[in-house]
Parts: sequence; structure tokens; C-alpha cells
Amino acid sequence: MDKQNHLQNIRVVLSHTTHPGNIGAAARAMKTMGLHHLYLINPRLFPDPQAEAMAAGADDVLRDAVVCNSIDEALHGVVYTVAMTARLRDISIEVKTPREAMPLLLHQAATQPVAMLFGTEMSGLTNEELGKAQVLVNIPAHPDFSSLNIAASVQVMAYELSVAAQSYLPDVPEIQPAPYEQVEGFFAHMEKTLFEIGFLTTQNPARMMQRLRRLYARTKLEPDEINILRGILSVATEYNARLRARYQRENPITPKQPKDISKYKDVRKH
Amino acid sequence: MDKQNHLQNIRVVLSHTTHPGNIGAAARAMKTMGLHHLYLINPRLFPDPQAEAMAAGADDVLRDAVVCNSIDEALHGVVYTVAMTARLRDISIEVKTPREAMPLLLHQAATQPVAMLFGTEMSGLTNEELGKAQVLVNIPAHPDFSSLNIAASVQVMAYELSVAAQSYLPDVPEIQPAPYEQVEGFFAHMEKTLFEIGFLTTQNPARMMQRLRRLYARTKLEPDEINILRGILSVATEYNARLRARYQRENPITPKQPKDISKYKDVRKH
Repeated sequence: MDKQNHLQNIRVVLSHTTHPGNIGAAARAMKTMGLHHLYLINPRLFPDPQAEAMAAGADDVLRDAVVCNSIDEALHGVVYTVAMTARLRDISIEVKTPREAMPLLLHQAATQPVAMLFGTEMSGLTNEELGKAQVLVNIPAHPDFSSLNIAASVQVMAYELSVAAQSYLPDVPEIQPAPYEQVEGFFAHMEKTLFEIGFLTTQNPARMMQRLRRLYARTKLEPDEINILRGILSVATEYNARLRARYQRENPITPKQPKDISKYKDVRKH
Repeated sequence: MDKQNHLQNIRVVLSHTTHPGNIGAAARAMKTMGLHHLYLINPRLFPDPQAEAMAAGADDVLRDAVVCNSIDEALHGVVYTVAMTARLRDISIEVKTPREAMPLLLHQAATQPVAMLFGTEMSGLTNEELGKAQVLVNIPAHPDFSSLNIAASVQVMAYELSVAAQSYLPDVPEIQPAPYEQVEGFFAHMEKTLFEIGFLTTQNPARMMQRLRRLYARTKLEPDEINILRGILSVATEYNARLRARYQRENPITPKQPKDISKYKDVRKH
């Protein structure tokens, strides 16, 4: 069936998993629902006998797992990412239930690679990692004890995906979202430009970039649109440079230089 | 809420569980979905440190767990039992999906104790045990690998129960889109700026604006986000305004004015 092909386009990405047993249990959960592609960002221990023990027959999923050094590597080529969150954050990015989100994920998976992103056992995903996703998903849980085991979360999500696949009607998505690396290229370009023109300053640029990421995450940018937006950024920079040059010609005193932005980048702490 | 009281009437019964880690993981899965009453029929090892380790905070569920010698003891007082099966057996009892069965179970739980019955890791429930249930439930899984871990099954069932109860649906932060006039104000500001910095020219600016409108229409801009984007637009041109003001102060002769953009004149020349 077509739906099997859709499942082939779905990656399960586990970021910085601490316990190898959880990786094995996640692999088993995936395989029961027809998922195969496991990506591991810097797992603490992998491969490991505990992972194999908990996989209980899903050793092909473990064998084919791709170990990555960064989220950028794990999401390369991906057009749509769903990130798990245990908290309902006070931010205006869309937070969906698994039942709402899985049909959308499946829909995108009809034609291109998509991903489900799971954080660490202790602290979940970082804000930077969440910023890479188009949709956040929260598994509704009891407010007093909302911490699902990571493999249990994978099982619930894979189950919802499988249920959605059974009722799925093949359809071509209207929006053809740009792949991960193009979207990230746009954000890097935007950040650089916003520093250049003086919009971003030392005061919390990471938070401002996060708000902008959320805005554009909702819209699911197409490749053409990224070209347009980057065109605007380039023109804005040229314009700014011309103004500066003219200002310098007319005012021999050197104006304030643009700030060094490298130290304001959001660096993951471990 | 009333539905939370319903959950108080639901027992999770694990029959002859081999690995104590699975008991702990099941307890955790239960607690995340608001279930508390765990019954264990002849567990191989319980209590056990592995159970506690896997419970990861659901130790109250383990502490209150009732160890029984028989299924009759575990189901005493229960009016409705759902039993899990990995196979679609040729027995004359109804087999339902979790999504079909959980609302029924919840309905019964409104007034009296009900149970979900899970078999051993290796062989599931015996025919005798299945015979004690009113409904069989099969979690739809991949035909080549349909064996869910027992705690993973508990998680899926408890999750479906929780969704059916609708008690813990997340209070999703809704997007609060800006009113028409704010959005239009943004587009007018953007158009003006794009002419000023030289991005829009005489060549089909209306079409370009339409593409940008479509992009932002999809994202449903919020008032705060419009403020951010208009802030960027202002900063992109304010350097120019500052420069112009100073130039005018220092040079009494009025400099060339910016062209009237309403006619889509090319302002790229400089």
C-alpha cells in the first residue's frame, strides 16, 4: 500500500539519549508500527548490549540506525519536523496533540522526508532544537506526572501515525516545503543581516531569532519563497552598505562598526 | 472533573509478568495518564529494585500495587474487563481497537470498577484468561512484527483512555491573529520599504507583493509579530532617515527627495 511508502519517509530522531536501553525500546516501538529509520544525535552509549536486549527483535532498526554529531546532520533533507515537548510553553508556536499532528506529518511524508524529534530523558529538547521544528507535539498527560518514558513516547507517536496511515487518503500536499538546510540557510542569513542593519543587538538576540523562527515555522517556507526573502535580505544589506559608505565619505569620523555576532549564537550546553 | 473519577475505577491487571522492569515501566505509563490501581497476578519478581528504577517516580503506584494469586482475585468486584491480544483469534468474542474499546471502558467506569488485562511477555494471555473478559482489544501493529512491549501496550491503552476521558487535553496556546487593518498596515509598510531599499522595481511589483502576502497569510501573523517585522522594516531604512536629516542640517540646499513609489517607479538608481 501507499501508506507503507509514506512510513519509509519518516525518521525518528533521538537527541542525546542517555540510556541505551531506551534506544532499543524505541527501536522496538518503531518496528511494531512499521517505522524503520532511526537517527541518533550523540547517544551516550551506542551500540550497546542493553539496546539490543530491549530491541527484542528490532535489531534491524538498530543496525541501520544513523549516528549523527548534530541536529543539522540528522535533519538534513527533511522538509517537516515534529518536535516533542512535555511542557506547554508560553510561546506562540503551535502545540498540537499527537492525533492532530500525525495526519499532517504523514501527509508531508507522502513525497519527502519528515522527522519526529525526541529529546533527552532528563530535560527533553533544548529551545534551539525546538526552534528547528515546524510543529510541537505534546502528549496529553496527567499534570502531576507528565513525564513519559522516551520509548513510551515513541510508541504513542508511532501508534498514532499507524492509525492515521490506515485512514489516510493519498493526496499531494499543496505546499512543497523547502528542506531543512535551505530553511537554516535563510535563518543564518536573516540573523547576519539583522545584525548588520542594527536591528539585532547584544540584548537577547537569541530570543528574538526564536520568535522569528516560530513565525516562519508556521508558514512552512517553499524554496521559491526562501529565494525571495533572501533576495530582500541581500538588497537590504547592499542598501545599508551604500548608506554607510556615503556617510563615511561625508563624515570623516568612522561610524560605529557592526557588532561581532559570533558570540551571541545560541550554543548548546552539556 | 468527573472523568477523573472514572479513572479511579480502572484497574490495570498484569498476569504473570516475567521482568520486574516491565512492571515498573507499566506503573510509570499508568501514572502519566492518571491511572493508579495496579494488580499483579503472580509476578515472578516483585517488589524488585528494577521495578522501582523503571517506575521513575511512579513508586506510589508500585507501593499500592495489589499482588494476587489468581485472576479471580484480581478481577473481584470488576464489572467489565478488556483483555489484550496480539493475535486476532478465531474465538467468538468481539475484538476491538483501543480507540473503539476505551470509550466503552470509561463509560462503565463511571459507576463501577473495570479492568484492563495484560498477559505475559512471551505468550500473552491464556484462553482461560481471555474468557474472563467482555471485550478483546488488539493494538493494530505491523504484521511482520506485532509484539509490543507490555509497558508500551499499557502506555498506548492508558493514552487512549486518557484521550477518551478528554480530561487532560492540553491548553494549547492558540494563535491570536492580528486584525485586518494591522496586517494591511504591515503590507503597506513592507511595500514602501522594499521600494526604498531597491528590492521592488517597476517590473511586476504587484505580483511580488502577492507572493509575499501569500507567504504571510499562511502564518497568520500575531500583533506582536507584526510589531517585530515592522521594527525590522523601520531599522532597515532609519539609517537612511538619520543620514538625510543630518545632511539637510549641514547642507541647506534640499537634497533629492525619494521618488513617489505609488507609481512603482524604479528607485534603485543612486
